[in-house]
Amino acid sequence: MASKLTAEERSAGLKALSGWKSVEGRDAIAKTYQFSDFNEAFGFMTRVALIAEKMDHHPEWFNVYKTVEVTLSTHDAGGLSMLDLKLAAQMDRIAGV
Amino acid sequence: MASKLTAEERSAGLKALSGWKSVEGRDAIAKTYQFSDFNEAFGFMTRVALIAEKMDHHPEWFNVYKTVEVTLSTHDAGGLSMLDLKLAAQMDRIAGV
Repeated sequence: MASKLTAEERSAGLKALSGWKSVEGRDAIAKTYQFSDFNEAFGFMTRVALIAEKMDHHPEWFNVYKTVEVTLSTHDAGGLSMLDLKLAAQMDRIAGV
Repeated sequence: MASKLTAEERSAGLKALSGWKSVEGRDAIAKTYQFSDFNEAFGFMTRVALIAEKMDHHPEWFNVYKTVEVTLSTHDAGGLSMLDLKLAAQMDRIAGV
Protein backbone atom coordinates (compact mmCIF):
# COMPACT_ATOMS: atom_id res chain seq x y z
CA MET A 1 0.00 0.00 0.00
CA ALA A 2 1.20 3.49 -0.81
CA SER A 3 2.17 5.54 2.22
CA LYS A 4 1.61 9.23 2.72
CA LEU A 5 4.56 11.41 1.76
CA THR A 6 6.51 13.23 4.42
CA ALA A 7 6.57 17.03 4.23
CA GLU A 8 10.08 16.83 2.72
CA GLU A 9 9.11 14.27 0.10
CA ARG A 10 5.99 16.28 -0.76
CA SER A 11 7.93 19.49 -1.18
CA ALA A 12 10.67 17.87 -3.27
CA GLY A 13 8.08 16.04 -5.38
CA LEU A 14 6.14 19.20 -6.15
CA LYS A 15 9.32 21.04 -7.08
CA ALA A 16 10.12 18.32 -9.62
CA LEU A 17 6.72 18.81 -11.29
CA SER A 18 5.54 21.78 -13.29
CA GLY A 19 2.30 23.63 -12.68
CA TRP A 20 0.89 21.37 -9.97
CA LYS A 21 -0.45 23.16 -6.92
CA SER A 22 -1.45 22.03 -3.44
CA VAL A 23 -5.20 21.90 -2.90
CA GLU A 24 -6.42 24.08 -0.04
CA GLY A 25 -7.86 22.18 2.89
CA ARG A 26 -6.89 18.81 1.49
CA ASP A 27 -3.72 16.76 1.10
CA ALA A 28 -3.92 16.67 -2.68
CA ILE A 29 -2.42 18.32 -5.77
CA ALA A 30 -4.22 19.79 -8.75
CA LYS A 31 -3.52 21.05 -12.24
CA THR A 32 -5.64 22.40 -15.08
CA TYR A 33 -4.70 21.42 -18.63
CA GLN A 34 -5.87 23.36 -21.66
CA PHE A 35 -5.92 21.68 -25.05
CA SER A 36 -6.88 22.82 -28.53
CA ASP A 37 -10.25 21.10 -28.58
CA PHE A 38 -12.30 18.22 -27.18
CA ASN A 39 -10.52 15.69 -29.38
CA GLU A 40 -7.17 16.57 -27.79
CA ALA A 41 -8.58 16.84 -24.27
CA PHE A 42 -10.34 13.50 -24.37
CA GLY A 43 -7.42 11.89 -26.18
CA PHE A 44 -5.26 12.96 -23.24
CA MET A 45 -7.80 11.55 -20.79
CA THR A 46 -7.90 8.25 -22.64
CA ARG A 47 -4.14 7.86 -22.59
CA VAL A 48 -4.06 8.74 -18.89
CA ALA A 49 -6.94 6.35 -18.16
CA LEU A 50 -4.97 3.39 -19.52
CA ILE A 51 -1.97 4.30 -17.36
CA ALA A 52 -4.13 4.94 -14.30
CA GLU A 53 -5.84 1.59 -14.68
CA LYS A 54 -2.49 -0.17 -15.00
CA MET A 55 -1.21 1.62 -11.89
CA ASP A 56 -4.51 0.92 -10.15
CA HIS A 57 -4.39 4.57 -9.16
CA HIS A 58 -7.03 6.88 -10.55
CA PRO A 59 -7.40 10.64 -10.88
CA GLU A 60 -10.31 12.85 -9.95
CA TRP A 61 -10.93 14.92 -13.02
CA PHE A 62 -13.37 17.34 -14.54
CA ASN A 63 -13.64 17.96 -18.26
CA VAL A 64 -15.50 20.57 -20.21
CA TYR A 65 -14.66 20.83 -23.90
CA LYS A 66 -10.91 21.52 -24.13
CA THR A 67 -10.22 21.88 -20.41
CA VAL A 68 -9.26 19.07 -18.02
CA GLU A 69 -8.95 19.83 -14.30
CA VAL A 70 -7.16 17.08 -12.40
CA THR A 71 -6.89 16.43 -8.66
CA LEU A 72 -4.62 13.71 -7.33
CA SER A 73 -4.59 12.17 -3.88
CA THR A 74 -4.31 8.64 -2.50
CA HIS A 75 -7.42 7.61 -0.63
CA ASP A 76 -5.80 4.59 1.02
CA ALA A 77 -2.89 6.69 2.25
CA GLY A 78 -5.10 9.53 3.50
CA GLY A 79 -3.21 12.04 1.41
CA LEU A 80 -0.52 12.52 -1.19
CA SER A 81 1.64 9.47 -1.95
CA MET A 82 4.37 8.61 -4.41
CA LEU A 83 1.65 7.23 -6.72
CA ASP A 84 0.28 10.75 -7.17
CA LEU A 85 3.68 12.14 -8.08
CA LYS A 86 4.17 9.32 -10.57
CA LEU A 87 0.76 9.80 -12.15
CA ALA A 88 1.27 13.58 -12.30
CA ALA A 89 4.58 13.11 -14.11
CA GLN A 90 2.95 10.72 -16.60
CA MET A 91 0.17 13.22 -17.24
CA ASP A 92 2.65 15.99 -17.95
CA ARG A 93 4.57 13.70 -20.26
CA ILE A 94 1.41 12.84 -22.23
CA ALA A 95 0.21 16.44 -22.34
CA GLY A 96 3.67 17.51 -23.45
CA VAL A 97 3.94 20.20 -20.80
CA MET B 1 -27.75 26.80 -33.94
CA ALA B 2 -29.66 25.10 -31.14
CA SER B 3 -32.25 27.29 -29.47
CA LYS B 4 -33.16 27.35 -25.82
CA LEU B 5 -36.10 25.14 -24.88
CA THR B 6 -39.36 26.71 -23.80
CA ALA B 7 -40.58 25.89 -20.30
CA GLU B 8 -43.03 23.39 -21.78
CA GLU B 9 -40.40 21.65 -23.91
CA ARG B 10 -38.04 21.55 -20.95
CA SER B 11 -40.62 20.01 -18.67
CA ALA B 12 -41.71 17.42 -21.24
CA GLY B 13 -38.11 16.58 -22.07
CA LEU B 14 -37.17 16.03 -18.44
CA LYS B 15 -40.21 13.83 -17.89
CA ALA B 16 -39.11 11.62 -20.79
CA LEU B 17 -35.69 11.11 -19.18
CA SER B 18 -34.90 9.14 -16.04
CA GLY B 19 -32.89 10.50 -13.11
CA TRP B 20 -31.92 13.82 -14.64
CA LYS B 21 -32.43 16.85 -12.39
CA SER B 22 -32.43 20.58 -12.99
CA VAL B 23 -29.31 22.33 -11.72
CA GLU B 24 -30.01 25.04 -9.17
CA GLY B 25 -29.19 28.54 -10.32
CA ARG B 26 -28.42 27.46 -13.85
CA ASP B 27 -30.38 26.38 -16.93
CA ALA B 28 -28.81 22.93 -17.05
CA ILE B 29 -29.54 19.33 -16.15
CA ALA B 30 -27.38 16.89 -14.22
CA LYS B 31 -27.13 13.21 -13.40
CA THR B 32 -24.70 11.04 -11.47
CA TYR B 33 -23.91 7.59 -12.83
CA GLN B 34 -22.43 4.84 -10.69
CA PHE B 35 -20.62 1.97 -12.36
CA SER B 36 -18.89 -1.17 -11.06
CA ASP B 37 -15.37 0.15 -11.44
CA PHE B 38 -13.15 2.58 -13.35
CA ASN B 39 -13.09 0.36 -16.41
CA GLU B 40 -16.87 0.62 -16.75
CA ALA B 41 -16.99 4.30 -15.88
CA PHE B 42 -14.32 5.32 -18.37
CA GLY B 43 -15.71 2.93 -20.96
CA PHE B 44 -18.99 4.81 -20.66
CA MET B 45 -17.20 8.14 -20.98
CA THR B 46 -15.36 6.97 -24.08
CA ARG B 47 -18.54 5.85 -25.82
CA VAL B 48 -20.23 9.13 -24.90
CA ALA B 49 -17.20 11.13 -26.06
CA LEU B 50 -17.48 9.69 -29.57
CA ILE B 51 -21.16 10.58 -29.74
CA ALA B 52 -20.59 14.03 -28.26
CA GLU B 53 -17.86 14.76 -30.78
CA LYS B 54 -20.10 13.64 -33.64
CA MET B 55 -22.94 15.85 -32.33
CA ASP B 56 -20.45 18.65 -31.73
CA HIS B 57 -22.11 18.98 -28.35
CA HIS B 58 -20.06 18.16 -25.29
CA PRO B 59 -20.84 17.38 -21.67
CA GLU B 60 -19.34 18.86 -18.53
CA TRP B 61 -18.35 15.86 -16.48
CA PHE B 62 -16.48 14.86 -13.38
CA ASN B 63 -15.11 11.39 -12.83
CA VAL B 64 -13.61 9.76 -9.80
CA TYR B 65 -13.10 5.99 -9.96
CA LYS B 66 -16.54 4.46 -10.69
CA THR B 67 -18.60 7.64 -10.47
CA VAL B 68 -19.38 10.01 -13.35
CA GLU B 69 -21.23 13.26 -12.64
CA VAL B 70 -22.58 14.89 -15.79
CA THR B 71 -23.97 18.38 -16.39
CA LEU B 72 -25.53 19.31 -19.70
CA SER B 73 -26.31 22.76 -21.05
CA THR B 74 -25.91 24.49 -24.38
CA HIS B 75 -23.55 27.44 -24.17
CA ASP B 76 -24.57 28.91 -27.51
CA ALA B 77 -28.25 28.78 -26.56
CA GLY B 78 -27.68 30.23 -23.09
CA GLY B 79 -29.36 27.23 -21.48
CA LEU B 80 -30.95 23.88 -22.11
CA SER B 81 -31.57 22.95 -25.75
CA MET B 82 -32.78 19.89 -27.63
CA LEU B 83 -29.12 18.86 -27.99
CA ASP B 84 -28.93 18.33 -24.23
CA LEU B 85 -32.01 16.14 -24.18
CA LYS B 86 -30.62 14.10 -27.07
CA LEU B 87 -27.22 13.67 -25.44
CA ALA B 88 -28.85 12.77 -22.10
CA ALA B 89 -30.94 10.08 -23.80
CA GLN B 90 -27.83 8.67 -25.50
CA MET B 91 -25.97 8.59 -22.20
CA ASP B 92 -28.80 6.68 -20.54
CA ARG B 93 -28.89 4.27 -23.42
CA ILE B 94 -25.16 3.59 -23.15
CA ALA B 95 -25.23 3.30 -19.37
CA GLY B 96 -28.20 0.98 -19.67
CA VAL B 97 -30.26 2.92 -17.15
